[in-house]
Amino acid sequence: MVDGRKSWVESAATHATPFPLQNLPYGVFSPPGAAPRCGVAIGDCVLDLAGLEAAGLLGRLPAGPFFSASSLNGFMAAGPATWAQVREHLTSLLETAGDPALREDSDLRASALLLRAEVTLHLPFAVKGYSDFYAGRQHAFNIGSLFRGPENALPPNWLHIPVGYNGRASTVVVSGTEIHRPLGQTKPKDAEAPVFGPSQRLDIELEMGAVVGLPSRMGRPLTVQQADHMIFGYVLLNDWSARDIQVWEYQPLGPFQAKVFATTISPWIVPKTALEPFRVATPPREKPLLPYLSEPGPGLYDIELEVWMQPDGAAEATRISRTNARHLYYSAAQQLAHHAIGGCKMESGDLLGSGTVSGPDSSGFGSLLELTWAGRHPLTLAGGAQRTFIEDGDSLTLTGWAEGADYRIGFGTCEGRILPAPEFP
Amino acid sequence: MVDGRKSWVESAATHATPFPLQNLPYGVFSPPGAAPRCGVAIGDCVLDLAGLEAAGLLGRLPAGPFFSASSLNGFMAAGPATWAQVREHLTSLLETAGDPALREDSDLRASALLLRAEVTLHLPFAVKGYSDFYAGRQHAFNIGSLFRGPENALPPNWLHIPVGYNGRASTVVVSGTEIHRPLGQTKPKDAEAPVFGPSQRLDIELEMGAVVGLPSRMGRPLTVQQADHMIFGYVLLNDWSARDIQVWEYQPLGPFQAKVFATTISPWIVPKTALEPFRVATPPREKPLLPYLSEPGPGLYDIELEVWMQPDGAAEATRISRTNARHLYYSAAQQLAHHAIGGCKMESGDLLGSGTVSGPDSSGFGSLLELTWAGRHPLTLAGGAQRTFIEDGDSLTLTGWAEGADYRIGFGTCEGRILPAPEFP
Repeated sequence: MVDGRKSWVESAATHATPFPLQNLPYGVFSPPGAAPRCGVAIGDCVLDLAGLEAAGLLGRLPAGPFFSASSLNGFMAAGPATWAQVREHLTSLLETAGDPALREDSDLRASALLLRAEVTLHLPFAVKGYSDFYAGRQHAFNIGSLFRGPENALPPNWLHIPVGYNGRASTVVVSGTEIHRPLGQTKPKDAEAPVFGPSQRLDIELEMGAVVGLPSRMGRPLTVQQADHMIFGYVLLNDWSARDIQVWEYQPLGPFQAKVFATTISPWIVPKTALEPFRVATPPREKPLLPYLSEPGPGLYDIELEVWMQPDGAAEATRISRTNARHLYYSAAQQLAHHAIGGCKMESGDLLGSGTVSGPDSSGFGSLLELTWAGRHPLTLAGGAQRTFIEDGDSLTLTGWAEGADYRIGFGTCEGRILPAPEFP
Repeated sequence: MVDGRKSWVESAATHATPFPLQNLPYGVFSPPGAAPRCGVAIGDCVLDLAGLEAAGLLGRLPAGPFFSASSLNGFMAAGPATWAQVREHLTSLLETAGDPALREDSDLRASALLLRAEVTLHLPFAVKGYSDFYAGRQHAFNIGSLFRGPENALPPNWLHIPVGYNGRASTVVVSGTEIHRPLGQTKPKDAEAPVFGPSQRLDIELEMGAVVGLPSRMGRPLTVQQADHMIFGYVLLNDWSARDIQVWEYQPLGPFQAKVFATTISPWIVPKTALEPFRVATPPREKPLLPYLSEPGPGLYDIELEVWMQPDGAAEATRISRTNARHLYYSAAQQLAHHAIGGCKMESGDLLGSGTVSGPDSSGFGSLLELTWAGRHPLTLAGGAQRTFIEDGDSLTLTGWAEGADYRIGFGTCEGRILPAPEFP
């Protein structure tokens, strides 16, 4: 993607930055000692949108003010025309050849353009509902093989339905939040009865998260095109999973305690618009889909994804997986259309997890369960430590970016460190 | 339960009323042309709590005002001491021999005591999270028999775990809301591929709903006693279910489109305190439970439950089921403790469905799937109409009450009428 436009914010004008002029992802931050408000990442900085909005530099926003709030939900609900208007103003204000109103006003620059390292990042939106899908074919096959054997690996509905389930919204947290290892019930193989204690098979799932902006009405199904129109942007998502709890509890109503303890997302919502140049088609359909899932155009994105693991005290992190979001079988728009097909009301601030992105070979699997094949093949990390599942003190970091010829659309990082299980009772 | 206390509100002083002085359930209502606010049901009336609070008649409420809001969430989050304080004031204000401040102030009576038939009832709280459990043993056995055969009916974890899953909060609606029949994927038996269309097996599930008042913190498990302390009260809950969608989609991640289109609750939250005289123990444990699920005392309630069905244009409704909430195997407090055992944060406004209450014999089954044994034995309604599953225009109504010697703690009704599936696309 040759674009050529540059920002006068120097740190945003290098190829290495995840946050060039072409990205402009939205988040919520607080300057030291001040209240949270909305901002945009540009190079090493955060641009305070509340300040720009108050100064009238984002145009007339009829349903606003949006950006002095501690979440992006109000702005996201305003819909694509408002999103486009704000993006146009921001691009012009930050571009070398653009509107000089910010660039040449040193007072405004000093108050509105803050170093990202000096602010605190918060959850960018109030998560209204969280639904998690299962759209990675290789992952579904791998997990199915491990839980039910390769002959029953892919469930009969999988090639027809973007299989998903309701997740837990209250424990979606922003990158950097420390997570306690969950306590729960597990049943050791061949044991008579289940036992209680900290999960011994704590895992990650490498996912993309789609953030719904425009809401829908109850009783009104959506086409895939309408669904795509409602998506505001994307984040990285780590669906922490306790495999030993999961395998004992998940029949017949699905995962519950194995997942509800925590889900981590990256702090910046990359606007769908910034990802347009990176759209790619879903893979060829192995079975024809019902018409309500038919796609108006390419629905996936070419986004490189990595997972890094770092034990407590280790000098460096080790990359344990590298894959790409194009390996998904269903797009977020298809998932959203399926979510609403029975009339489910979708809300501004709904989060849709893609399901684990696992590449076609083992270097690109998106969970430790797959990478170590249920613990049979431990990973060796830099410095020599071995891992099957997550140990206390380990940090897990997801990162991702879409690669253009002269810029990158980066997602930043989605990181979490595991603390020991709490004392109980 | 002989209590003997009476209200000076005449319609509240009869044995037949669901809303005597001993109940005082909370809801949200709007007088004609006015904004929603919180109220309490008493006899045929609603008492406007916003008015009483403004007049200073509910005592000092430090975290208030609570009752001019359009939801009870703020009051519910204030916790048991505040709940007790308000209940004490209300009881005194409404009791024959109590505080005369309302009884003898005709202006205040005229403005604060409204006929229920003249107001509109709303969802009583903003539903933060909705989780649905599966705590009826007979129901689990029946459904398991129908879906997997009697030999695999009760899943191996069922006697150890209060099995549950995350539901969809955005489509929890108040009694009286009309529901569109959902569209979705189903797979006819022996068909090569799934088909798309309106569900042909639309059903109800008769449940109790527990409403969480006091929130908990992420990473902090709860004992059953702590969990019970957090529960504000109970409602009736109809977990509408599309059985043909469910049976095709539910493996491996549980029900999704079969359930997310709608859940109906009764408009009045019966305070836990009003149900204290009706506590009964859970049934004898068939397998010992892990200590984190042990109960400090009786956790269930003796609540009579009924389901009524009325086709469009039928002269009368037919009672199709009668059972009792004491037939559950796990209490709401056990479900809540299990929900939080891995560290899940529970919020003020979380709703926990009990799972379908099915009595030990077929007259008390809590779903049409069970009552008609998957459509094999149609029901005959008053007037001669036959039903296997719900047809367009049918109204389904749940009702329930705890029966004392001289009063009833009623839940009112939880009603919904089914509209045809929407046109799509």
